[in-house]
Amino acid sequence: MPSYHPPTKDMQFLLHEVLNASASDIPGYDELDRDFTAAILDEAGKIAAEVLQPLNAVGDHEGCTLENGVVRTPTGFKAAYDQMREGGWMGLDADPDYGGQGMPHLMGSAVGEMFVSANMAFNMYQGLTHGAYSALHAHGTEQQKATYLPNMIEGRWSGTMNLTEPHCGTDLGLIRTKAEPQDDGSYRITGQKIWISAGEHDMAENIIHLVLAKIPGGPEGIKGISLFVVPKFLVSEDGSLGDRNAVSCGGLEQKMGIHGNATCVMNYDGATGWLVGEEHKGMRAMFTMMNEARLGVGLQGYAQGAVAYQNALGFAQDRLQGRDITGAKNPDGPADPIIVHPDVRRNLLAQKSFVEGARAFVFWGAQMIDRAQRMDDAEADAMISLLTPVIKGFLTDKGFETTVLAQQTLGGSGFTREWGLEQFVRDARITMIYEGTNGIQSLDLVGRKLGQNGGKTVMAFFEMVKAFLKENEDHAELKSGFLDPLKAASKDLQAAGMYFMAEGMKNPNNALSGSYDFMHLFGHVCLGLMWSHIAKAAYAALEAGTADEDFYRTKLATGRFYMARHLPATAMHLARIQSGAEPVMTLDAANF
Amino acid sequence: MPSYHPPTKDMQFLLHEVLNASASDIPGYDELDRDFTAAILDEAGKIAAEVLQPLNAVGDHEGCTLENGVVRTPTGFKAAYDQMREGGWMGLDADPDYGGQGMPHLMGSAVGEMFVSANMAFNMYQGLTHGAYSALHAHGTEQQKATYLPNMIEGRWSGTMNLTEPHCGTDLGLIRTKAEPQDDGSYRITGQKIWISAGEHDMAENIIHLVLAKIPGGPEGIKGISLFVVPKFLVSEDGSLGDRNAVSCGGLEQKMGIHGNATCVMNYDGATGWLVGEEHKGMRAMFTMMNEARLGVGLQGYAQGAVAYQNALGFAQDRLQGRDITGAKNPDGPADPIIVHPDVRRNLLAQKSFVEGARAFVFWGAQMIDRAQRMDDAEADAMISLLTPVIKGFLTDKGFETTVLAQQTLGGSGFTREWGLEQFVRDARITMIYEGTNGIQSLDLVGRKLGQNGGKTVMAFFEMVKAFLKENEDHAELKSGFLDPLKAASKDLQAAGMYFMAEGMKNPNNALSGSYDFMHLFGHVCLGLMWSHIAKAAYAALEAGTADEDFYRTKLATGRFYMARHLPATAMHLARIQSGAEPVMTLDAANF
Repeated sequence: MPSYHPPTKDMQFLLHEVLNASASDIPGYDELDRDFTAAILDEAGKIAAEVLQPLNAVGDHEGCTLENGVVRTPTGFKAAYDQMREGGWMGLDADPDYGGQGMPHLMGSAVGEMFVSANMAFNMYQGLTHGAYSALHAHGTEQQKATYLPNMIEGRWSGTMNLTEPHCGTDLGLIRTKAEPQDDGSYRITGQKIWISAGEHDMAENIIHLVLAKIPGGPEGIKGISLFVVPKFLVSEDGSLGDRNAVSCGGLEQKMGIHGNATCVMNYDGATGWLVGEEHKGMRAMFTMMNEARLGVGLQGYAQGAVAYQNALGFAQDRLQGRDITGAKNPDGPADPIIVHPDVRRNLLAQKSFVEGARAFVFWGAQMIDRAQRMDDAEADAMISLLTPVIKGFLTDKGFETTVLAQQTLGGSGFTREWGLEQFVRDARITMIYEGTNGIQSLDLVGRKLGQNGGKTVMAFFEMVKAFLKENEDHAELKSGFLDPLKAASKDLQAAGMYFMAEGMKNPNNALSGSYDFMHLFGHVCLGLMWSHIAKAAYAALEAGTADEDFYRTKLATGRFYMARHLPATAMHLARIQSGAEPVMTLDAANF
Repeated sequence: MPSYHPPTKDMQFLLHEVLNASASDIPGYDELDRDFTAAILDEAGKIAAEVLQPLNAVGDHEGCTLENGVVRTPTGFKAAYDQMREGGWMGLDADPDYGGQGMPHLMGSAVGEMFVSANMAFNMYQGLTHGAYSALHAHGTEQQKATYLPNMIEGRWSGTMNLTEPHCGTDLGLIRTKAEPQDDGSYRITGQKIWISAGEHDMAENIIHLVLAKIPGGPEGIKGISLFVVPKFLVSEDGSLGDRNAVSCGGLEQKMGIHGNATCVMNYDGATGWLVGEEHKGMRAMFTMMNEARLGVGLQGYAQGAVAYQNALGFAQDRLQGRDITGAKNPDGPADPIIVHPDVRRNLLAQKSFVEGARAFVFWGAQMIDRAQRMDDAEADAMISLLTPVIKGFLTDKGFETTVLAQQTLGGSGFTREWGLEQFVRDARITMIYEGTNGIQSLDLVGRKLGQNGGKTVMAFFEMVKAFLKENEDHAELKSGFLDPLKAASKDLQAAGMYFMAEGMKNPNNALSGSYDFMHLFGHVCLGLMWSHIAKAAYAALEAGTADEDFYRTKLATGRFYMARHLPATAMHLARIQSGAEPVMTLDAANF
């Protein structure tokens, strides 16, 4: 059976030595001192390891069941959900005006990683609630907020997002669900939505569905979409639950993974709903949820990699097979632990260097969100908007790959259910798909985000990298091990951007054919930047003197591995990009 | 539900236009004319598509069950097995002296691909039988051969290979199963073996286990291992089945995939067995099976990719989402089929170009095996021995990756059981693990095969590439699209080999730390070489005039994609290799 060890030490290092959180000028960050964050992380880690992780395999084996319209979650889920509610974890970073704890998004991400590593399927119930909370918080009326938010923050009510229909996922302009205005200001919602995570379950008293639908007579396509709030139980004026609304679960999907989460077909049969935000402006409101969800999915990707790595490492340190070619390391045993073998180490370091770099990337992004939201910082907002598809696409591709590598460390045991690695692979797989496939992320990046603000944001990214390189160029070891490869990778990224500008003008397919590689190229540069920051902090600690030299030297060795072994991928991605549209577009669709 | 379309047209192209099989001097190849191979491929394709493929999902859902020592295979498996037997498919390339059809291994591979694409778990029962047949054929006594082979070729009896024990997989020197000599020349076999594919089932009348065990008093470790044949039912002198032997299935593994195949814990409780080959030379005999099995697993890898690609393509041609950015392709419909989008095409071409290149690689390898076996050609034997770990490791890594890409093409549908793509992913995953993990393949390649015959074989490989480049350099289009990138990739491979020679001498870990990248680098060069051969044949057909221009132009476009988009990986692998042991070996095992 797999186990989980909360990576609180690494998180504390990131918060206090890399990001220097409590010294930040972002409102609320001043209280994030070491003791405070340690207390939160330790407590969250305990719940993750002791409450959520043991239910992970249970959820996978039992799955959810649907009977007479009622969805039952796996054994133990309800009790764990109640425990999370009682601990106030669901409102950790929510608005205090509605009962939240008002902590920075940064802390929400750190805590979230542990919950997701421990039990991704379980954590989705509250993750979806959080997304719905954010959309209502940003776009709901005062009355809607007062009605829904406190209950959602408390976890008494959960939330969902309803976009996909059988004939349309990515292309939401095609949706058919209709919302007919009623005399009392409400709407009658009719249609079918599919793949609705946490659409129906037995853990919350009410479920607040946010639903995209078209008001008859509105504009065609994406411009005619509005957002509605449709509660499972109607809410009386006094806040008590009234009649059951005409929304029901018509089926559960049989899926490759995340069996503990109910993926529902939702039927709206003239359900009563209320408009959220403006008529026909539903996509704008939905994007609030979607951007948050995309960052959350990026986090899921590396969080699955993180727990998979831990279990691969444990196996590699225990399993005895073969001998170190340079001399036995366990001469009294029948063989050496397999971690002595170079190829096993290569595999483990690929996992470790990705997970720790990704964690830094997500924490850094979370800090950017806090800056954007708490200081109305438009530049930070633009930067996280640029990086969102990279976080989602790159971290889930590589997060999945990491679970596959971890599974490989175990050999045959990795393929058996008993060891649990194969569940991480199956669960992580969805992260590359939902909230916009990674192909869609790459289109968002190249087709929309690169050009935002006339390209100023991506230029600001390059300037930031350049400034960091310049600032630290006198540190010889940092320079040779980290800054030089980062510089080369960043140059590749710039060259790719230049190619898109020059050739994409002539033919947009020259850019679109390289979008996926560009997303990966960008991801490597971001992780290279993160490792450079981590290395800078590690050198600083070692130079200042520390009782924990091993920790910092390990950071440096892990980072050097990433720079030496993974950053060379940027040249490959650039070469592919520069081959342009021809190899991709030549073939007739009929001849594939 | 997924479907399967036998790729007989591509196979015929490879057999007759790329490999020119019937013009070969290999004994038996002269009968491989177009009509003959078409008849076989069509018939095999029909069985694959109509009999085996419909059982693929059934096998996945039902799995195998164990009750009172009896393993039941999924509904329909026994009837399909009988149909395969009656058609003589199990002895297609087996020795006519024992009832086989004596066809070249090349035809066995072509037919095998279709059976594996259609139903990998099912085909493993006969695949294991074939491996056991080969080991007995090569190392058994005349009496053993006469007793077992005809029944195995006919499929009345099936076979297994028993290597792994709970505490040892890769490091077989540690095995504990013992074989005590008896007065009548037999041995008493006692021990436990795990992960025995097809170890027990209800489709054959007898199961012939080949078992590695140690004769007490023999040398320590790997040099004290012998191979034994241990039938489930003892065989009387007249060939009839006698008493049940003391071998039984003690459990079935719960696995990520290949649920239709019974993966057994096998208990040998003083079972009666007979030595195969010489005492303490069991590894040699086992390698006969293992080499064959490794090639078979490489085939499984790309065969799963092949069927996954077909289904992804079907989806991409049907599913309507979004519009071609350069103008609607389906203006009368609500949207265009997603195959118009560059990133969807990139994804599909990555799948297609791998699958078709891999097919050529495996066919080429099969021809090499035929040359080695039918002409006692030592050079061909050495070459296929060098390439075996590349075929196994590279084709299964990329085959699995291809199933993941195909799953991605379907978006959310790819994650649901209904569409079947997720099964291909789960089934393909095992190919990277069994018959020696791909890490072990890379060690075999770098640690053993590169140096074989004093490096002469790998030099012969480079000479072969060089000669091909030289021979065809006057063809301008072939040169720019194919030969130039092949040349660059081949140079990277040579540079990696030089690095290993120079730096591996100083420290073997400099070579071992790069073994995995070397295996992939080698794989890309091989597929680049295959695509160059394919392109040469396609240009020849177009220049000679053909009624099927689309077919040949499609080959060229697909190949150009591989060369432009995938061969650039070789430089990345070389850069990683040249970073040497330092990034991999620095960290203490305790600090991971």
